[in-house]
Amino acid sequence: MIRTQTAAERSLLGLKGMSKQEIEAILERASYWANYPVKVTGQLAGKFVANMFFENSTRTRFSFELAEKRLGAEVLNFSAAVSSVQKGESIYDTVRTLESMGIDAGIIRLKPVGVLQELAQKIRIPLINAGDGNNEHPTQALLDIYTMRQHFGEIQGLTVSIIGDIQHSRVARSNLWGLRTMGAEVQFCAPPQMMAQDLEGQIRYVSIEEALRADVVMLLRLQLERHETGMIKSAEEYREQYGLTAERAKLLKPHAIIMHPAPVNRNVEIDDEVVEHEQSRIFTQIANGVPIRMAVIERAVG
Amino acid sequence: MIRTQTAAERSLLGLKGMSKQEIEAILERASYWANYPVKVTGQLAGKFVANMFFENSTRTRFSFELAEKRLGAEVLNFSAAVSSVQKGESIYDTVRTLESMGIDAGIIRLKPVGVLQELAQKIRIPLINAGDGNNEHPTQALLDIYTMRQHFGEIQGLTVSIIGDIQHSRVARSNLWGLRTMGAEVQFCAPPQMMAQDLEGQIRYVSIEEALRADVVMLLRLQLERHETGMIKSAEEYREQYGLTAERAKLLKPHAIIMHPAPVNRNVEIDDEVVEHEQSRIFTQIANGVPIRMAVIERAVG
Amino acid sequence: MIRTQTAAERSLLGLKGMSKQEIEAILERASYWANYPVKVTGQLAGKFVANMFFENSTRTRFSFELAEKRLGAEVLNFSAAVSSVQKGESIYDTVRTLESMGIDAGIIRLKPVGVLQELAQKIRIPLINAGDGNNEHPTQALLDIYTMRQHFGEIQGLTVSIIGDIQHSRVARSNLWGLRTMGAEVQFCAPPQMMAQDLEGQIRYVSIEEALRADVVMLLRLQLERHETGMIKSAEEYREQYGLTAERAKLLKPHAIIMHPAPVNRNVEIDDEVVEHEQSRIFTQIANGVPIRMAVIERAVG
Repeated sequence: MIRTQTAAERSLLGLKGMSKQEIEAILERASYWANYPVKVTGQLAGKFVANMFFENSTRTRFSFELAEKRLGAEVLNFSAAVSSVQKGESIYDTVRTLESMGIDAGIIRLKPVGVLQELAQKIRIPLINAGDGNNEHPTQALLDIYTMRQHFGEIQGLTVSIIGDIQHSRVARSNLWGLRTMGAEVQFCAPPQMMAQDLEGQIRYVSIEEALRADVVMLLRLQLERHETGMIKSAEEYREQYGLTAERAKLLKPHAIIMHPAPVNRNVEIDDEVVEHEQSRIFTQIANGVPIRMAVIERAVG
Repeated sequence: MIRTQTAAERSLLGLKGMSKQEIEAILERASYWANYPVKVTGQLAGKFVANMFFENSTRTRFSFELAEKRLGAEVLNFSAAVSSVQKGESIYDTVRTLESMGIDAGIIRLKPVGVLQELAQKIRIPLINAGDGNNEHPTQALLDIYTMRQHFGEIQGLTVSIIGDIQHSRVARSNLWGLRTMGAEVQFCAPPQMMAQDLEGQIRYVSIEEALRADVVMLLRLQLERHETGMIKSAEEYREQYGLTAERAKLLKPHAIIMHPAPVNRNVEIDDEVVEHEQSRIFTQIANGVPIRMAVIERAVG
Repeated sequence: MIRTQTAAERSLLGLKGMSKQEIEAILERASYWANYPVKVTGQLAGKFVANMFFENSTRTRFSFELAEKRLGAEVLNFSAAVSSVQKGESIYDTVRTLESMGIDAGIIRLKPVGVLQELAQKIRIPLINAGDGNNEHPTQALLDIYTMRQHFGEIQGLTVSIIGDIQHSRVARSNLWGLRTMGAEVQFCAPPQMMAQDLEGQIRYVSIEEALRADVVMLLRLQLERHETGMIKSAEEYREQYGLTAERAKLLKPHAIIMHPAPVNRNVEIDDEVVEHEQSRIFTQIANGVPIRMAVIERAVG
């Protein structure tokens, strides 16, 4: 079993700075759980895990909840939409409150960048980042890396294209840090207004044509609601320039795989018929999310 | 135990076309669970059931959740109001996602008619219809039939009046198909604008006076919010013409029973004092919903 | 174990009229659970408890849910925001419905005063008040009393100041009844427009200076949203006149403790830096809420 000493070490705030060895340990343990003969174990019996979603996400919350319940933990859920955060309660006070009540770990998703790092300084239980602003979404990148390794055997030497709104993407950032540590080459493809200003000089942008020649073509969700004020002219125009259309899918290398963190905007960043294309691993990624999260939660609480 | 082979056969999409034998098998198994000496069993230990409510319903979701937990299953809940369906995610993608995560069955409520049939073609896990548009609500009809059988001993030969907004009622349709298969005579009573156009020629309408002479008088909930644009002049007028007022309740045969799928609009389709009338089975129906759903879920997952 | 006979006796609607002996029995049992060596027991295995929040509250619901799960009970949750109460369903019908489905106890929070008493007359399962309007919030007062006893050894002879919006506070009322029964002297401090009209003549108001000389200084949450129409000029003004500022905290007796039912409005009723002051018991109160609720739920269902 994966064991570390302090709450900070057992937390998972991001992949930036995490060692190759530690990433591999998580992947190994996920593989163990993926092949485990029964669905529910008593591994974390008597432990309480709280899913604290200050930003709604049905699918990520479900994936964590399944992982927690498969490990035999007791689960508490809340999403901001039904929480007293509405009453002006700060995120810190909520997390501190749940800590005082006796939970053993918290899964947390939130919008404001930097708050999670502050929290982790003050809170004594392990915290797992389920997405914080545009900063990191480490379990997503871990499941992505797991999915690539499953297909290619190893990560070292792979070329991975990440296409879309890099500027606002925590998925892109976590994959960048994790994949580089694992020895892959990461390249981005984005319209100029979606390039990441904070990463300038650290990353390489390629054209859509070049992006399609990679081993892994990862599409990001276009946050349509975020761009309504004119950053992009229209979803149609985005699809035309950056979408993985049925036409473009024909240009992929035969061994290449298509990935997307989901939920997809069908016929925007990816054509409807490509979602379940034989080279697509979109639903495989989702399936892999559960054992990855089991490994991460066990590492935090076990 | 009730066992069938494929996910499609283990699904419960509707009562239309279901055989008498199969309905009876469900009723028998529900009776078994209704009389089971302990509340929680390990019958479905290690199985995951997801309650996917794309249309909110506290009481139906609770009834399913109780049934699932009494069977020892692990339960995941979501309702559309807090889901990423808001972000434009399609119902299919959500269900397919949960399937990929490893759930064993899905309970689903949704508005658009026809979507459930499409889903069932594409999804490999059993699905249980918890209400789809105005099409079917099979577990409601099964618990209604169970309640009638409990009171009358058998369904064959009963006359059942269903009063209210037939056009928009999935409860009316599921009861029509199920009760006919079981040998009951079903008659409807509705204002002209609430008669079911799709059922024209297949069903019989009677006056409110005649409807009250049946063995079972089943009232439907008036969807007040649906009719505000003038389909009915007022709730008061509806009550006067079609409501089971205290006056009208006196006209019921002594052996007859009053039913309603709940929640009731007190003093609209039924008078306040009639809700818990000695001939009313409204709360008995609710109690019977749990063992019926246990039987249906066990049939899907067991 | 604490046992009583009828559902009414096993219910906890308020502390008004509850005997000292009964309060002490709950405190004793809470102490037992606080020191229990494992987190989850099988005490209430096979029992169903429903958390019915007709008024949202993340932290109170979590505290009850933790207590229920630590006792091994099956838990059902709903909050009004996602319930069919929106469809005009009455509170009574919802509770009666859950009762019919077979739950063993209900935790209930609601706004309208008097409804809970009515419910308790008609419902046959035990009900636990998780806050009803401005009437009572008995588990909060019990955990407050528990926290005072933990610090002072006994309640008899303590002086407790409750500062804030007494008029709208169920916490103030429950503490008043419970603390008086236990032999404490309770005094209030409030702006004139926040004094409790229904308690006139029964309670004593003191100045903020005198309030600070008590053994326990309990601050109430200022319901900012409630007072926007001008009952108070501003949060700043409230803080200046009634807030426990860092300045005022220096005036506390060395043995005195600071309490607040939470969530706090930082820098309104209490300064940010005082929340985790060494004399503050705010997070201790939260921690004590779980064993108190375990004792109360066990008393209801066990």
